[in-house]
Amino acid sequence: MSASSEGVQALRWRNGRLELIDQRVLPAHLEYHACSSAAEVAEAIRAMVVRGAPAIGCAAAFGVALEAKSKQHRTPAEFDAAMEAAFSTLAASRPTAVNLFWALGRMRAALSPRGDPPSAAARLAEAAVALMKADIETNRAIGRAGAALIADGARILTYCNTGALATAGHGTALGVVRSARDADKGVSVIACETRPYLQGARLTAWELMQENIPVTLITDNMVGHLMRLGRIDLVIVGADRIAANGDVANKIGTYTLALLAERHRLPFYVAAPLSTIDIATEDGGAIPIEERSAAEVTGYGGMQWAPQGVAVANPAFDITPAELVSGLITEKGVVTRPDTVKIRALFAA
Amino acid sequence: MSASSEGVQALRWRNGRLELIDQRVLPAHLEYHACSSAAEVAEAIRAMVVRGAPAIGCAAAFGVALEAKSKQHRTPAEFDAAMEAAFSTLAASRPTAVNLFWALGRMRAALSPRGDPPSAAARLAEAAVALMKADIETNRAIGRAGAALIADGARILTYCNTGALATAGHGTALGVVRSARDADKGVSVIACETRPYLQGARLTAWELMQENIPVTLITDNMVGHLMRLGRIDLVIVGADRIAANGDVANKIGTYTLALLAERHRLPFYVAAPLSTIDIATEDGGAIPIEERSAAEVTGYGGMQWAPQGVAVANPAFDITPAELVSGLITEKGVVTRPDTVKIRALFAA
Repeated sequence: MSASSEGVQALRWRNGRLELIDQRVLPAHLEYHACSSAAEVAEAIRAMVVRGAPAIGCAAAFGVALEAKSKQHRTPAEFDAAMEAAFSTLAASRPTAVNLFWALGRMRAALSPRGDPPSAAARLAEAAVALMKADIETNRAIGRAGAALIADGARILTYCNTGALATAGHGTALGVVRSARDADKGVSVIACETRPYLQGARLTAWELMQENIPVTLITDNMVGHLMRLGRIDLVIVGADRIAANGDVANKIGTYTLALLAERHRLPFYVAAPLSTIDIATEDGGAIPIEERSAAEVTGYGGMQWAPQGVAVANPAFDITPAELVSGLITEKGVVTRPDTVKIRALFAA
Repeated sequence: MSASSEGVQALRWRNGRLELIDQRVLPAHLEYHACSSAAEVAEAIRAMVVRGAPAIGCAAAFGVALEAKSKQHRTPAEFDAAMEAAFSTLAASRPTAVNLFWALGRMRAALSPRGDPPSAAARLAEAAVALMKADIETNRAIGRAGAALIADGARILTYCNTGALATAGHGTALGVVRSARDADKGVSVIACETRPYLQGARLTAWELMQENIPVTLITDNMVGHLMRLGRIDLVIVGADRIAANGDVANKIGTYTLALLAERHRLPFYVAAPLSTIDIATEDGGAIPIEERSAAEVTGYGGMQWAPQGVAVANPAFDITPAELVSGLITEKGVVTRPDTVKIRALFAA
């Protein structure tokens, strides 16, 4: 299944409709899933049609815009009520990635002062498009900052999917890989499959193969062994929420990778936009961790391999303490050994 | 799918035939796979109809016995040639678990002096049965020794399958769990699914549910997170080969578990019979690590989720350095912080 020549676009805004690549069926099928309302976007986020913290934020922004468009000819009171419901529905779709709440905050700002509903709807559509375009520029800046850290020929371990599919384009951690490749650094990638949802096996491997970036797929439990054999040079991951002190919530398993990197004296980088940093959350202990369904663990894609009725734990994220992070790669540059003071400075600049 | 009232038996010797539970189709189906020759047993080992270091050793012993039985009316020269071929075929089935070679050595000893082929065949069948019975007794002794280490209410992390299915009965690491339960310690188990072959999800979860031992299934990448939250008290794993210095070859991912246990100050135990200790191998660096097929990583059970043609690494085992092992639980007792001297003493006693 090939992507178009313009590259992979997780989200497309066409004729006032949002089209999402259905990431549940990649790489076997490249299909678009259309959304026409905030409720449909919220359901697409919940069901992981679209996933990845920045992409979720963009999708939620379009969810607000879609709702405004469909309700613009109602009375102002009805319009306001519909918008409040849309914000609530979208905010309840997934709890951990903060970009969702950040994007909703941006859209709320664009809504005020409202003016008449049709002009508000037009403004919200423009705001969502601007947010999507800005995300691509942000990722390119992250990529440039991160590529400067990458040695020629580096063998980069990455996790989950942090590429074009997880963002409006280019990617965060995978954006660093793309930028390093564009700088002719001859990098290669070891991609963890990332159980239970297999974003690494399905999405990261696919994205990298589309661009002829060398990739080797492994199961998540092989990382320690490969590090011990000296086959990995550094780790770059994305983030779903970064607390004010630099603690990182990211896909379950990230904390283990950070410990393994520390033990084998390898750099462990987190690549994320400032919109992933939640200054209002003091540390990782305050970040809500989503628990997802048992069916994700007992099998995959309709196939169940575990015994019927087995008890399951399925936390979707974990917390990596800031002291394990070698550097936080943002659109404002690299924050080495992030802490509260350095992170606050990012927002002051 | 329920096991018989006599408990799970990975191997049965009935009417001169070897019947193996087909572990490829558990837990959905409980089927027996019959073998009548050394070549059939070797193929069953290679294809993982039977797996687990002690069970592989027992199966190989029956492979020798089967071959002797079917060739007992040939000329002595033909019989000898067939037996040599049988030993070679069985030895080539899988490279890492040393119990295979240990069992073949026992069978070779039972063959010499040969005498006439029919009496040799009878002796080899007896030797294989004795080896299987001894494995159960060995596992019960391991279980008793290990249970003494387990606190009441302990939440035990285990990996892969080390139970009745991996042995002639009772199990090694899971045998310790069984013995702890029999001692009314109120233990519970966290079972890692163990990608790529999912022995934890399919076999360990099934065995424990058969016996009403509380089990929670997780993906392998959740261990660090759960340890950080204080939800795991200790780790017990099995082994495929232990070098003379105490380095442990076991299912890929074991090394990572050992590092995580060390970091979180949790005991990391290895439960294995003396037949798993390879005194002739100085350290873990000399243990051959089997590389298995890409298809195990790109999907499961005929379903492929990774892109066609993606490069894959699939080492089936890794090496845990002896210094990460809190204790080696054997049928001769627990060796705390194993090293070359303590391991040599096990064989002297």
